[in-house]
Amino acid sequence: MNHDILFDFIAQYMPLEEAEKQAIIELDVFKWVEKGTILQREGDRSNQYFFVLKGCIRSYILKNGEEKTTGLYLETESFSPPCNVKGNVSDLFVETLEDSIVCIANPSMEKDLFSKFPRFESLCRILVEDLLAKNREQFDVFRISNPEERYLYMLEHQKDLVQRVPQHILASYLGIQPQSLSRIRKRLAEKS
Amino acid sequence: MNHDILFDFIAQYMPLEEAEKQAIIELDVFKWVEKGTILQREGDRSNQYFFVLKGCIRSYILKNGEEKTTGLYLETESFSPPCNVKGNVSDLFVETLEDSIVCIANPSMEKDLFSKFPRFESLCRILVEDLLAKNREQFDVFRISNPEERYLYMLEHQKDLVQRVPQHILASYLGIQPQSLSRIRKRLAEKS
Repeated sequence: MNHDILFDFIAQYMPLEEAEKQAIIELDVFKWVEKGTILQREGDRSNQYFFVLKGCIRSYILKNGEEKTTGLYLETESFSPPCNVKGNVSDLFVETLEDSIVCIANPSMEKDLFSKFPRFESLCRILVEDLLAKNREQFDVFRISNPEERYLYMLEHQKDLVQRVPQHILASYLGIQPQSLSRIRKRLAEKS
Repeated sequence: MNHDILFDFIAQYMPLEEAEKQAIIELDVFKWVEKGTILQREGDRSNQYFFVLKGCIRSYILKNGEEKTTGLYLETESFSPPCNVKGNVSDLFVETLEDSIVCIANPSMEKDLFSKFPRFESLCRILVEDLLAKNREQFDVFRISNPEERYLYMLEHQKDLVQRVPQHILASYLGIQPQSLSRIRKRLAEKS
Protein backbone atom coordinates (compact mmCIF):
# COMPACT_ATOMS: atom_id res chain seq x y z
CA MET A 1 0.00 0.00 0.00
CA ASN A 2 1.11 3.55 -0.69
CA HIS A 3 1.03 4.67 2.90
CA ASP A 4 3.57 1.95 3.72
CA ILE A 5 6.16 4.11 1.96
CA LEU A 6 5.44 6.83 4.51
CA PHE A 7 5.39 4.40 7.44
CA ASP A 8 8.68 2.80 6.38
CA PHE A 9 10.22 6.24 6.12
CA ILE A 10 8.97 7.22 9.59
CA ALA A 11 10.13 3.86 11.00
CA GLN A 12 13.73 4.95 10.36
CA TYR A 13 13.14 7.49 13.11
CA MET A 14 10.51 5.76 15.25
CA PRO A 15 8.46 2.59 14.58
CA LEU A 16 4.75 3.45 14.59
CA GLU A 17 2.04 1.74 16.63
CA GLU A 18 -1.07 0.48 14.82
CA ALA A 19 -3.24 3.24 16.34
CA GLU A 20 -0.80 5.87 15.09
CA LYS A 21 -0.80 4.42 11.57
CA GLN A 22 -4.59 4.33 11.64
CA ALA A 23 -4.77 7.99 12.69
CA ILE A 24 -2.57 8.95 9.74
CA ILE A 25 -4.62 6.88 7.29
CA GLU A 26 -7.81 8.50 8.56
CA LEU A 27 -6.44 11.95 7.74
CA ASP A 28 -6.98 11.01 4.11
CA VAL A 29 -3.87 12.84 2.96
CA PHE A 30 -2.72 10.46 0.22
CA LYS A 31 -3.52 11.88 -3.21
CA TRP A 32 -2.92 10.41 -6.64
CA VAL A 33 -1.96 13.27 -8.93
CA GLU A 34 -1.49 13.15 -12.68
CA LYS A 35 1.76 14.38 -14.27
CA GLY A 36 1.68 18.11 -15.01
CA THR A 37 -0.85 19.01 -12.32
CA ILE A 38 -0.36 22.36 -10.60
CA LEU A 39 -0.71 21.77 -6.84
CA GLN A 40 -0.15 25.38 -5.86
CA ARG A 41 -0.06 28.66 -7.81
CA GLU A 42 1.62 32.00 -7.30
CA GLY A 43 -0.85 34.18 -5.42
CA ASP A 44 -2.59 31.27 -3.69
CA ARG A 45 -3.13 31.56 0.03
CA SER A 46 -2.17 28.10 1.14
CA ASN A 47 -0.71 26.35 4.14
CA GLN A 48 -0.25 22.90 2.71
CA TYR A 49 2.95 20.92 2.57
CA PHE A 50 3.92 17.95 0.49
CA PHE A 51 5.55 14.57 1.05
CA VAL A 52 6.27 12.55 -2.11
CA LEU A 53 5.36 8.87 -1.87
CA LYS A 54 5.83 8.20 -5.58
CA GLY A 55 6.79 10.41 -8.48
CA CYS A 56 8.35 13.84 -8.56
CA ILE A 57 7.25 17.37 -7.71
CA ARG A 58 8.89 20.63 -8.60
CA SER A 59 8.62 24.16 -7.24
CA TYR A 60 9.32 27.14 -9.48
CA ILE A 61 9.11 30.90 -9.47
CA LEU A 62 7.97 32.90 -12.52
CA LYS A 63 10.55 35.62 -13.12
CA ASN A 64 10.05 37.86 -16.14
CA GLY A 65 7.87 35.15 -17.67
CA GLU A 66 10.54 32.48 -17.23
CA GLU A 67 10.10 29.42 -14.99
CA LYS A 68 12.99 29.32 -12.49
CA THR A 69 13.09 25.94 -10.78
CA THR A 70 13.78 26.25 -7.05
CA GLY A 71 13.11 22.70 -5.84
CA LEU A 72 12.86 19.10 -7.08
CA TYR A 73 11.52 16.39 -4.78
CA LEU A 74 11.43 12.63 -5.28
CA GLU A 75 10.18 9.70 -3.18
CA THR A 76 10.33 10.28 0.63
CA GLU A 77 11.28 13.92 0.17
CA SER A 78 9.11 16.67 1.55
CA PHE A 79 8.55 20.33 0.83
CA SER A 80 6.93 23.14 2.80
CA PRO A 81 6.78 26.27 0.65
CA PRO A 82 8.43 28.99 2.80
CA CYS A 83 5.70 31.48 1.87
CA ASN A 84 3.12 29.12 3.42
CA VAL A 85 5.06 28.79 6.67
CA LYS A 86 5.36 32.58 6.90
CA GLY A 87 1.63 33.04 6.21
CA ASN A 88 2.24 34.97 2.97
CA VAL A 89 0.51 34.36 -0.33
CA SER A 90 2.42 31.94 -2.50
CA ASP A 91 5.32 33.36 -4.51
CA LEU A 92 5.83 30.05 -6.28
CA PHE A 93 4.19 27.23 -8.20
CA VAL A 94 4.25 23.55 -7.22
CA GLU A 95 3.61 20.96 -9.93
CA THR A 96 4.01 17.23 -10.54
CA LEU A 97 6.66 16.26 -13.12
CA GLU A 98 5.46 12.62 -13.15
CA ASP A 99 2.28 10.78 -12.22
CA SER A 100 2.67 10.98 -8.45
CA ILE A 101 1.26 9.95 -5.11
CA VAL A 102 1.66 12.84 -2.74
CA CYS A 103 0.80 13.22 0.91
CA ILE A 104 -0.68 16.72 1.23
CA ALA A 105 -1.02 17.89 4.82
CA ASN A 106 -1.56 21.13 6.71
CA PRO A 107 -0.88 22.52 10.21
CA SER A 108 -4.36 21.75 11.56
CA MET A 109 -3.93 18.04 10.74
CA GLU A 110 -0.54 18.19 12.38
CA LYS A 111 -1.95 19.83 15.50
CA ASP A 112 -4.65 17.19 15.68
CA LEU A 113 -2.06 14.39 15.45
CA PHE A 114 0.19 16.01 18.07
CA SER A 115 -2.68 16.27 20.55
CA LYS A 116 -3.58 12.58 20.10
CA PHE A 117 0.02 11.31 19.90
CA PRO A 118 2.44 13.78 21.49
CA ARG A 119 5.50 11.86 20.32
CA PHE A 120 4.62 12.88 16.75
CA GLU A 121 5.79 16.34 17.68
CA SER A 122 9.17 14.95 18.67
CA LEU A 123 9.33 13.06 15.38
CA CYS A 124 8.42 16.20 13.51
CA ARG A 125 11.14 18.21 15.24
CA ILE A 126 13.78 15.64 14.31
CA LEU A 127 12.57 15.45 10.70
CA VAL A 128 12.63 19.23 10.32
CA GLU A 129 16.14 19.41 11.85
CA ASP A 130 17.31 16.86 9.27
CA LEU A 131 15.64 18.83 6.48
CA LEU A 132 17.27 22.05 7.64
CA ALA A 133 20.72 20.39 7.73
CA LYS A 134 20.19 18.98 4.24
CA ASN A 135 18.95 22.28 2.88
CA ARG A 136 21.88 24.17 4.41
CA GLU A 137 24.36 21.71 2.99
CA GLN A 138 22.84 22.00 -0.49
CA PHE A 139 22.84 25.79 -0.22
CA ASP A 140 26.51 25.79 0.85
CA VAL A 141 27.46 23.60 -2.11
CA PHE A 142 25.49 25.80 -4.51
CA ARG A 143 27.04 28.98 -3.10
CA ILE A 144 30.69 27.91 -3.28
CA SER A 145 30.58 25.84 -6.49
CA ASN A 146 30.85 26.58 -10.17
CA PRO A 147 28.22 25.06 -12.51
CA GLU A 148 30.24 21.92 -13.26
CA GLU A 149 30.82 21.27 -9.56
CA ARG A 150 27.10 21.73 -8.89
CA TYR A 151 26.29 19.18 -11.57
CA LEU A 152 28.89 16.72 -10.18
CA TYR A 153 27.35 17.10 -6.70
CA MET A 154 23.97 16.31 -8.20
CA LEU A 155 25.37 13.25 -9.98
CA GLU A 156 26.76 12.02 -6.67
CA HIS A 157 23.91 12.90 -4.30
CA GLN A 158 20.78 13.25 -6.44
CA LYS A 159 21.46 10.90 -9.35
CA ASP A 160 17.76 10.04 -9.81
CA LEU A 161 17.06 13.66 -10.68
CA VAL A 162 19.55 13.51 -13.54
CA GLN A 163 17.79 10.45 -14.93
CA ARG A 164 14.19 11.55 -14.44
CA VAL A 165 13.99 15.32 -14.85
CA PRO A 166 14.03 17.11 -18.25
CA GLN A 167 17.33 18.83 -19.08
CA HIS A 168 15.98 22.39 -19.26
CA ILE A 169 14.49 22.01 -15.77
CA LEU A 170 17.73 20.56 -14.37
CA ALA A 171 19.65 23.46 -15.90
CA SER A 172 17.33 25.98 -14.28
CA TYR A 173 17.68 24.17 -10.93
CA LEU A 174 21.48 24.39 -11.28
CA GLY A 175 21.17 28.12 -12.00
CA ILE A 176 22.55 27.84 -15.55
CA GLN A 177 21.38 27.94 -19.18
CA PRO A 178 20.44 24.64 -20.90
CA GLN A 179 23.32 25.13 -23.38
CA SER A 180 25.78 25.37 -20.45
CA LEU A 181 24.47 22.10 -19.02
CA SER A 182 24.89 20.43 -22.43
CA ARG A 183 28.49 21.66 -22.61
CA ILE A 184 29.22 20.41 -19.08
CA ARG A 185 27.78 16.97 -19.88
CA LYS A 186 29.74 16.79 -23.11
CA ARG A 187 32.97 17.80 -21.36
CA LEU A 188 32.45 15.20 -18.62
CA ALA A 189 31.62 12.50 -21.20
CA GLU A 190 34.84 13.27 -23.07
CA LYS A 191 36.87 13.08 -19.86
CA SER A 192 35.53 9.68 -18.84
CA MET B 1 21.46 40.82 31.34
CA ASN B 2 22.61 38.99 28.23
CA HIS B 3 20.27 36.07 28.64
CA ASP B 4 17.34 38.49 28.49
CA ILE B 5 18.07 38.81 24.76
CA LEU B 6 17.42 35.07 24.47
CA PHE B 7 14.35 35.16 26.72
CA ASP B 8 12.86 38.11 24.81
CA PHE B 9 13.42 36.23 21.58
CA ILE B 10 11.76 33.07 22.93
CA ALA B 11 8.88 35.14 24.35
CA GLN B 12 7.82 35.97 20.80
CA TYR B 13 6.91 32.28 20.55
CA MET B 14 6.07 31.41 24.16
CA PRO B 15 6.59 33.43 27.37
CA LEU B 16 8.87 31.52 29.74
CA GLU B 17 8.16 30.68 33.38
CA GLU B 18 10.79 31.57 36.00
CA ALA B 19 11.74 27.90 36.49
CA GLU B 20 12.31 27.54 32.76
CA LYS B 21 14.52 30.62 32.61
CA GLN B 22 16.47 29.35 35.61
CA ALA B 23 17.02 25.97 33.93
CA ILE B 24 18.45 27.71 30.86
CA ILE B 25 20.71 29.94 32.96
CA GLU B 26 22.01 26.88 34.83
CA LEU B 27 23.10 25.29 31.57
CA ASP B 28 25.86 27.92 31.54
CA VAL B 29 25.72 28.29 27.75
CA PHE B 30 26.38 32.02 27.48
CA LYS B 31 29.94 32.67 26.33
CA TRP B 32 31.73 35.96 25.76
CA VAL B 33 33.97 35.46 22.73
CA GLU B 34 36.56 37.89 21.41
CA LYS B 35 36.48 39.02 17.75
CA GLY B 36 38.40 36.67 15.46
CA THR B 37 37.98 33.56 17.64
CA ILE B 38 37.55 30.27 15.81
CA LEU B 39 34.65 28.42 17.46
CA GLN B 40 34.83 25.36 15.22
CA ARG B 41 37.42 24.10 12.72
CA GLU B 42 37.29 21.91 9.64
CA GLY B 43 37.93 18.35 10.80
CA ASP B 44 36.51 18.91 14.30
CA ARG B 45 34.05 16.35 15.57
CA SER B 46 31.48 18.62 17.14
CA ASN B 47 27.78 18.69 17.87
CA GLN B 48 27.45 22.23 19.11
CA TYR B 49 25.15 24.89 17.76
CA PHE B 50 25.18 28.62 18.13
CA PHE B 51 22.72 31.37 18.97
CA VAL B 52 24.05 34.92 18.71
CA LEU B 53 23.09 37.22 21.59
CA LYS B 54 25.47 40.02 20.59
CA GLY B 55 27.95 40.38 17.77
CA CYS B 56 28.36 38.41 14.59
CA ILE B 57 29.53 34.95 13.63
CA ARG B 58 30.47 33.61 10.24
CA SER B 59 30.78 30.11 8.79
CA TYR B 60 33.15 29.45 5.91
CA ILE B 61 34.59 26.58 3.91
CA LEU B 62 38.22 26.47 2.80
CA LYS B 63 38.25 25.70 -0.93
CA ASN B 64 41.63 25.59 -2.67
CA GLY B 65 43.02 27.73 0.13
CA GLU B 66 40.33 30.39 -0.25
CA GLU B 67 37.78 31.20 2.46
CA LYS B 68 34.27 30.83 1.00
CA THR B 69 31.72 32.38 3.35
CA THR B 70 28.58 30.24 3.69
CA GLY B 71 26.78 31.95 6.57
CA LEU B 72 26.61 35.23 8.48
CA TYR B 73 24.62 35.45 11.72
CA LEU B 74 23.76 38.49 13.80
CA GLU B 75 21.79 39.03 17.03
CA THR B 76 18.99 36.46 17.65
CA GLU B 77 20.10 34.34 14.70
CA SER B 78 21.16 30.76 15.17
CA PHE B 79 23.27 28.28 13.30
CA SER B 80 23.60 24.49 13.47
CA PRO B 81 26.42 23.35 11.18
CA PRO B 82 24.83 20.67 8.93
CA CYS B 83 27.88 18.40 9.36
CA ASN B 84 27.25 18.37 13.13
CA VAL B 85 23.59 17.42 12.70
CA LYS B 86 24.59 14.58 10.37
CA GLY B 87 27.27 13.33 12.77
CA ASN B 88 30.09 14.00 10.28
CA VAL B 89 33.36 15.76 11.07
CA SER B 90 33.14 19.46 10.39
CA ASP B 91 33.64 20.59 6.78
CA LEU B 92 33.58 24.24 7.79
CA PHE B 93 34.94 26.85 10.17
CA VAL B 94 32.89 29.03 12.51
CA GLU B 95 34.42 32.30 13.74
CA THR B 96 33.39 35.54 15.41
CA LEU B 97 33.59 38.66 13.22
CA GLU B 98 33.00 40.96 16.21
CA ASP B 99 33.37 40.68 19.99
CA SER B 100 30.32 38.51 20.63
CA ILE B 101 28.16 36.86 23.23
CA VAL B 102 27.12 33.49 21.91
CA CYS B 103 24.91 30.81 23.38
CA ILE B 104 26.67 27.52 22.59
CA ALA B 105 24.50 24.46 23.17
CA ASN B 106 24.47 20.77 22.23
CA PRO B 107 21.89 17.97 21.90
CA SER B 108 22.47 16.55 25.38
CA MET B 109 21.59 19.92 26.95
CA GLU B 110 18.53 20.03 24.71
CA LYS B 111 17.46 16.53 25.74
CA ASP B 112 17.87 17.46 29.37
CA LEU B 113 15.68 20.56 28.92
CA PHE B 114 13.03 18.62 26.98
CA SER B 115 12.74 16.02 29.73
CA LYS B 116 12.29 18.69 32.42
CA PHE B 117 10.06 20.98 30.32
CA PRO B 118 8.39 19.08 27.47
CA ARG B 119 6.99 22.25 25.91
CA PHE B 120 10.56 23.25 25.01
CA GLU B 121 10.42 20.55 22.36
CA SER B 122 7.35 22.18 20.85
CA LEU B 123 9.15 25.54 20.90
CA CYS B 124 12.17 23.98 19.28
CA ARG B 125 10.08 22.44 16.49
CA ILE B 126 8.50 25.80 15.70
CA LEU B 127 11.85 27.59 15.74
CA VAL B 128 13.41 25.03 13.40
CA GLU B 129 10.43 25.24 11.03
CA ASP B 130 10.89 29.01 10.89
CA LEU B 131 14.62 28.59 10.26
CA LEU B 132 13.95 26.11 7.47
CA ALA B 133 11.47 28.47 5.80
CA LYS B 134 13.95 31.36 6.06
CA ASN B 135 16.81 29.25 4.72
CA ARG B 136 14.70 27.99 1.80
CA GLU B 137 13.61 31.50 0.92
CA GLN B 138 17.20 32.77 0.97
CA PHE B 139 18.31 29.81 -1.14
CA ASP B 140 15.50 30.47 -3.67
CA VAL B 141 16.51 34.11 -3.96
CA PHE B 142 20.17 33.18 -4.38
CA ARG B 143 19.35 30.56 -7.00
CA ILE B 144 17.19 32.72 -9.24
CA SER B 145 18.97 36.06 -8.87
CA ASN B 146 21.94 37.73 -10.51
CA PRO B 147 24.62 39.29 -8.26
CA GLU B 148 23.03 42.75 -8.22
CA GLU B 149 19.63 41.29 -7.27
CA ARG B 150 21.28 39.27 -4.47
CA TYR B 151 22.88 42.44 -3.14
CA LEU B 152 19.58 44.35 -3.33
CA TYR B 153 17.85 41.53 -1.41
CA MET B 154 20.55 41.80 1.25
CA LEU B 155 20.10 45.59 1.43
CA GLU B 156 16.38 45.07 1.99
CA HIS B 157 16.41 42.06 4.33
CA GLN B 158 19.87 41.96 5.94
CA LYS B 159 20.91 45.60 5.98
CA ASP B 160 22.96 45.21 9.18
CA LEU B 161 25.25 42.79 7.38
CA VAL B 162 26.05 45.42 4.77
CA GLN B 163 27.00 47.89 7.49
CA ARG B 164 28.94 45.55 9.78
CA VAL B 165 30.67 42.91 7.63
CA PRO B 166 33.89 43.57 5.63
CA GLN B 167 33.36 43.91 1.88
CA HIS B 168 35.45 40.91 0.82
CA ILE B 169 33.44 38.65 3.15
CA LEU B 170 30.13 40.07 1.88
CA ALA B 171 31.27 39.45 -1.69
CA SER B 172 32.15 35.85 -0.91
CA TYR B 173 28.76 35.38 0.80
CA LEU B 174 27.07 36.75 -2.35
CA GLY B 175 29.08 34.31 -4.46
CA ILE B 176 30.97 37.04 -6.35
CA GLN B 177 34.42 38.65 -6.50
CA PRO B 178 35.09 41.75 -4.34
CA GLN B 179 35.64 43.83 -7.53
CA SER B 180 32.15 42.82 -8.76
CA LEU B 181 30.62 43.94 -5.47
CA SER B 182 32.43 47.29 -5.77
CA ARG B 183 31.08 47.75 -9.30
CA ILE B 184 27.52 46.89 -8.17
CA ARG B 185 27.71 49.39 -5.30
CA LYS B 186 29.09 52.08 -7.60
CA ARG B 187 26.37 51.45 -10.19
CA LEU B 188 23.64 51.60 -7.55
CA ALA B 189 25.11 54.79 -6.05
CA GLU B 190 25.09 56.45 -9.49
CA LYS B 191 21.48 55.43 -10.07
CA SER B 192 20.20 56.91 -6.80
